[in-house]
Amino acid sequence: MATSPDSLQSRDAAEELRRCADSIDAQERGAEMHGLVRELYPICRSITGDGLRQSLRILQRIAPLQLREVPSGTQVFDWVVPREWNVRSARLLGPDGEVIADAGRLNLHLLNYSAPFRGKVQLEELQRHLHSLPDQPALVPYRTSYYKEDWGFCLTHELRNRLQPGEYEVQMDTSLAQGSLTYGELLVPGAQADEVLLSAHCCHPSLANDNLSGMVLCATLARLLAGTSPRYSYRFLFVPGTIGSIAWLALNEEKASRVAHGLVAACVGDSGMLTYKRSRRGDAEIDRAAVHVLAQSGQEYRVRDFTPYGYDERQYCSPGFNLPVGSLTRTPHGEYPEYHTSADDPALVKPEMLVDSLRRYLEIFEVLEGNRTYVNLSPKCEPQLGKRGLYGSVGGQSHAVASQMAMLWVLNLCDGTRTLLDVAERSRLRFSELRRAAEALRRAGLLAEERGRKQ
Amino acid sequence: MATSPDSLQSRDAAEELRRCADSIDAQERGAEMHGLVRELYPICRSITGDGLRQSLRILQRIAPLQLREVPSGTQVFDWVVPREWNVRSARLLGPDGEVIADAGRLNLHLLNYSAPFRGKVQLEELQRHLHSLPDQPALVPYRTSYYKEDWGFCLTHELRNRLQPGEYEVQMDTSLAQGSLTYGELLVPGAQADEVLLSAHCCHPSLANDNLSGMVLCATLARLLAGTSPRYSYRFLFVPGTIGSIAWLALNEEKASRVAHGLVAACVGDSGMLTYKRSRRGDAEIDRAAVHVLAQSGQEYRVRDFTPYGYDERQYCSPGFNLPVGSLTRTPHGEYPEYHTSADDPALVKPEMLVDSLRRYLEIFEVLEGNRTYVNLSPKCEPQLGKRGLYGSVGGQSHAVASQMAMLWVLNLCDGTRTLLDVAERSRLRFSELRRAAEALRRAGLLAEERGRKQ
Amino acid sequence: MATSPDSLQSRDAAEELRRCADSIDAQERGAEMHGLVRELYPICRSITGDGLRQSLRILQRIAPLQLREVPSGTQVFDWVVPREWNVRSARLLGPDGEVIADAGRLNLHLLNYSAPFRGKVQLEELQRHLHSLPDQPALVPYRTSYYKEDWGFCLTHELRNRLQPGEYEVQMDTSLAQGSLTYGELLVPGAQADEVLLSAHCCHPSLANDNLSGMVLCATLARLLAGTSPRYSYRFLFVPGTIGSIAWLALNEEKASRVAHGLVAACVGDSGMLTYKRSRRGDAEIDRAAVHVLAQSGQEYRVRDFTPYGYDERQYCSPGFNLPVGSLTRTPHGEYPEYHTSADDPALVKPEMLVDSLRRYLEIFEVLEGNRTYVNLSPKCEPQLGKRGLYGSVGGQSHAVASQMAMLWVLNLCDGTRTLLDVAERSRLRFSELRRAAEALRRAGLLAEERGRKQ
Repeated sequence: MATSPDSLQSRDAAEELRRCADSIDAQERGAEMHGLVRELYPICRSITGDGLRQSLRILQRIAPLQLREVPSGTQVFDWVVPREWNVRSARLLGPDGEVIADAGRLNLHLLNYSAPFRGKVQLEELQRHLHSLPDQPALVPYRTSYYKEDWGFCLTHELRNRLQPGEYEVQMDTSLAQGSLTYGELLVPGAQADEVLLSAHCCHPSLANDNLSGMVLCATLARLLAGTSPRYSYRFLFVPGTIGSIAWLALNEEKASRVAHGLVAACVGDSGMLTYKRSRRGDAEIDRAAVHVLAQSGQEYRVRDFTPYGYDERQYCSPGFNLPVGSLTRTPHGEYPEYHTSADDPALVKPEMLVDSLRRYLEIFEVLEGNRTYVNLSPKCEPQLGKRGLYGSVGGQSHAVASQMAMLWVLNLCDGTRTLLDVAERSRLRFSELRRAAEALRRAGLLAEERGRKQ
Repeated sequence: MATSPDSLQSRDAAEELRRCADSIDAQERGAEMHGLVRELYPICRSITGDGLRQSLRILQRIAPLQLREVPSGTQVFDWVVPREWNVRSARLLGPDGEVIADAGRLNLHLLNYSAPFRGKVQLEELQRHLHSLPDQPALVPYRTSYYKEDWGFCLTHELRNRLQPGEYEVQMDTSLAQGSLTYGELLVPGAQADEVLLSAHCCHPSLANDNLSGMVLCATLARLLAGTSPRYSYRFLFVPGTIGSIAWLALNEEKASRVAHGLVAACVGDSGMLTYKRSRRGDAEIDRAAVHVLAQSGQEYRVRDFTPYGYDERQYCSPGFNLPVGSLTRTPHGEYPEYHTSADDPALVKPEMLVDSLRRYLEIFEVLEGNRTYVNLSPKCEPQLGKRGLYGSVGGQSHAVASQMAMLWVLNLCDGTRTLLDVAERSRLRFSELRRAAEALRRAGLLAEERGRKQ
Repeated sequence: MATSPDSLQSRDAAEELRRCADSIDAQERGAEMHGLVRELYPICRSITGDGLRQSLRILQRIAPLQLREVPSGTQVFDWVVPREWNVRSARLLGPDGEVIADAGRLNLHLLNYSAPFRGKVQLEELQRHLHSLPDQPALVPYRTSYYKEDWGFCLTHELRNRLQPGEYEVQMDTSLAQGSLTYGELLVPGAQADEVLLSAHCCHPSLANDNLSGMVLCATLARLLAGTSPRYSYRFLFVPGTIGSIAWLALNEEKASRVAHGLVAACVGDSGMLTYKRSRRGDAEIDRAAVHVLAQSGQEYRVRDFTPYGYDERQYCSPGFNLPVGSLTRTPHGEYPEYHTSADDPALVKPEMLVDSLRRYLEIFEVLEGNRTYVNLSPKCEPQLGKRGLYGSVGGQSHAVASQMAMLWVLNLCDGTRTLLDVAERSRLRFSELRRAAEALRRAGLLAEERGRKQ
């Protein structure tokens, strides 16, 4: 049972990733990530347009992602890439000329994808173009109208209630024109062609947790991975939600078929507990790796079954693809009160939460990289670990220490039918402990990697 | 993927049944059903005889069931149809001539299937022929002696305790003679030969919940179904318990082989929560349909695994048949204090409970009728529902409404391997919501029924 | 379907074992077993040597086990049988000549397998050879050094803290020399070559629960089984822990392949609840039999999944063997405070607990012996039990009695695909009740044993 080069590499990569996760300087890394969130926050992004391009170019400072352009009108499965939308300014003035809403101050005030319009409307007609939150009257909502041509403004319900009858002036200086949809793509190549997909949506304007946190996390992951030699190739997609992932899937079906594992990253900066949403498959290796990492994190966490609502996992997990793609967030979409409102601002995102999320993503990669099938070469009774210096010499104590238990579990369960993740789930020991035990046993000649088995 | 006529029909039938369940006038229907219970109550039924015949003829006013006669002495598997039993009168007189028990006042006083006897017996000997309930001293028990020739009386324990020594006169004017066993049968034909079996036992004398409620429920179901065009054929059996279902199975093995789903109806009028007892198979479609309906009812309910004790499911689920037949009751046999006593009278049965049970049976039929396998014709990514008018145009809101979630679930899970009931179980949405979503998607050309798959 | 002789025998054996378990005189048997524990307690056992031999010879008074000798230096898989260890005396004297530790008073004082040594050492050096329990300062620990040549003493932490600087005299009069490892073996032959393995470790010196209780239990079981005619052959192993079971497996691979079920017996005398540790397979018949017996015991109990730590199940369940061997203990190793200390003395072991454990082992054997696959010969509907005297004649009562329920369950589930243990698990009735019901039905011609199916 010879060891193939990529096996050696992957063993090293898993250890590299472990050390990477362990050696993060939380303060420095957190400050850097949060700084990026603040820098990206004011830009008016949408599913197309210059705000999106500008945001992706800022991320290029962190990781060398490439910008791809898909022309308006391109058919992508059941959808058509819409006209490109850009905003010069958008203001709503009151009967006395006072500024009611100004996208220049907060781009959420603008109904995203509003068509250009200039004119005066009475309050009654204007109301049909206003969006506010009766239950959260002090917040401005985030609303869009991508596929029905419309214009509108979003404002606080408090302000809306104070609007007086009269004539309002709409200065909607936007454009909808032939152009393209932009997305960012980056491949960190590994020893294998099989890919790990990381996807973040980039279309939301001034919303910090949803999803500047995910964009910054993915860019940071890409930078850290570039310093390692992984077994898998890692593909990062920075896409406008829904239409962006659909466009990528439609134009890259062959690449999609190489996705062995995937995660959709979003809402990774708030103070809530980590939440893993399973892939449609439910028990894919990524599902098990993520749940193992969360279970061993020592923190509270949530695991949810797949539902066909949420982020771009909806597309990756559509039945025609059914990719093993889950989603790791902190508080899920729609479950925190600031969601899709002006309260999802950089203050909602905490540097230490960004770093904690980053660590868990790295730990999941460690599991994927190190998850191999081994076979005990001395399967009849336990081998004598003591004579190899792998076991304490004084007997009679009540419990074996963790590293010895890890060796005993690996020896007992590794019969060529189980991966290390299987052993981790069964033993409830940490994957890294088992991975290192396996490596010690392998070096002692007691264990070999099983060839020809998919991990 | 052409749509077969019976598919169209079943889609209509499911909707018809849904509307039927939704449009029941609870007050009117409850009064009618309870009136029938009261009318049937005084009749002295048994496993054979004129009381049984008379009861089935009353049900014919509701639904056109046919009376079948199986001659005494007919071998039915391991059993023999017994002699027919009839009662003219049955009285027990005390030493002073006072009436101790009189079947004319309450037919439970008579040990059911008592052989004829006239004579005087001392109290000591009489005691061996008396049945009472020490723990429920004010109630008269229901007791039978079908297969051991005997005579006896049932009375309250209070009265029994007051009996004085002396000579008692027994006037047991019954007959046991060559005749036949009677049962009622009705087939509501559907597009398919596959049958749904509904079975109610009819052999109990003056007991209202057990099982006049079940008899009246089945007759009412038969009448309502007659106004629809179902996919399945529905067979209703009104049989004396045990020997009746055994006789039907022995004489109709070919029909039994067509039973695709079945329910034994009993104790459906008391105020307890609904209780579903699974078939021996445990996960038959009928089991899953019934559990789904109860889980979505918004009421408390119970689900029990199969046990080989209870009603005629014992026979339908015997290993030589193993039919997918469960039982839907309210409080199960033996678990309410009035069970098999004089307290199981029409006052125990509530009109609104009869109607609630009726609705659940109809909802289960709706699931059976509408449970089809569909395939998403646009399986790569989500189709654009908005351009088809199936989705709201303003985006950004936290949650999709129920009908949109139903469409997303159907599109995501319907890959030709799952039925709508699978989707309902997985999504925890109501079956009717999913069924209507599937129908809307089918009309929009996004979904087709999968041919050649058993639902 | 003819009945083979060994089937008849096994049916008798199961009933014999039931009666044996039911007829144990708890007081007499408990006193006898506890007397043996007390007699064995003072002997200085180890994994080799005369203490071990002497202990096995005492057990020969109960059951005719044979002593086997494996010479020092024998290679047994990855291990080598060590030199034989014997002790003449072992004392530690203080600076003023006072006795600090004396194996003659309590053999735990001696680090088990200490090499011979005579000389004077300063306290500082002596400390490296002392073992005590800071958290349990009044107790002497049990410690060993089998595979690293060393000498040492175990003492209370209280005493250790009082030791004064100065010169200590070590009189370690032991020997490590070419000799052999001894184990005891006994086969109670049955109708089949398939074996039930019972294994107890015998290497611990003065520790009563761990494992004099297990040794005495196994010897008593062997004696009781010798009075029956079992279906299975029962092999009893009395082995030094780890090296003993490894030696037996290495030298008896063909016998090991005949092990159909097995239990490792240890810690069966303390007052804790019974604890079953599953075999590595997890759902072997022995696992299910043991769990059923505990679940029906009416006592609290624990069931644990297999872990590769504990007693000799570690070896029997190593992946190269993977034998269906579980372990039935009371409080598991390491989970009672007296474990591996001087407090694990005969007072910790209760006669009534020894007897309770003994009963459960016998009940597990009853299940193994009686677990057969039957087929209902009258599978269409229920057979009429009443006409065969197997069912009460007066109907209408709320619940069937237990023996009738047992018959109904057996008839309903025994279709040739299920064992009686399957029926017991499904019905939650006691195995013996079902076994007797099956026997009554078999005698009535309603049931036959299914040939050619592994039980």
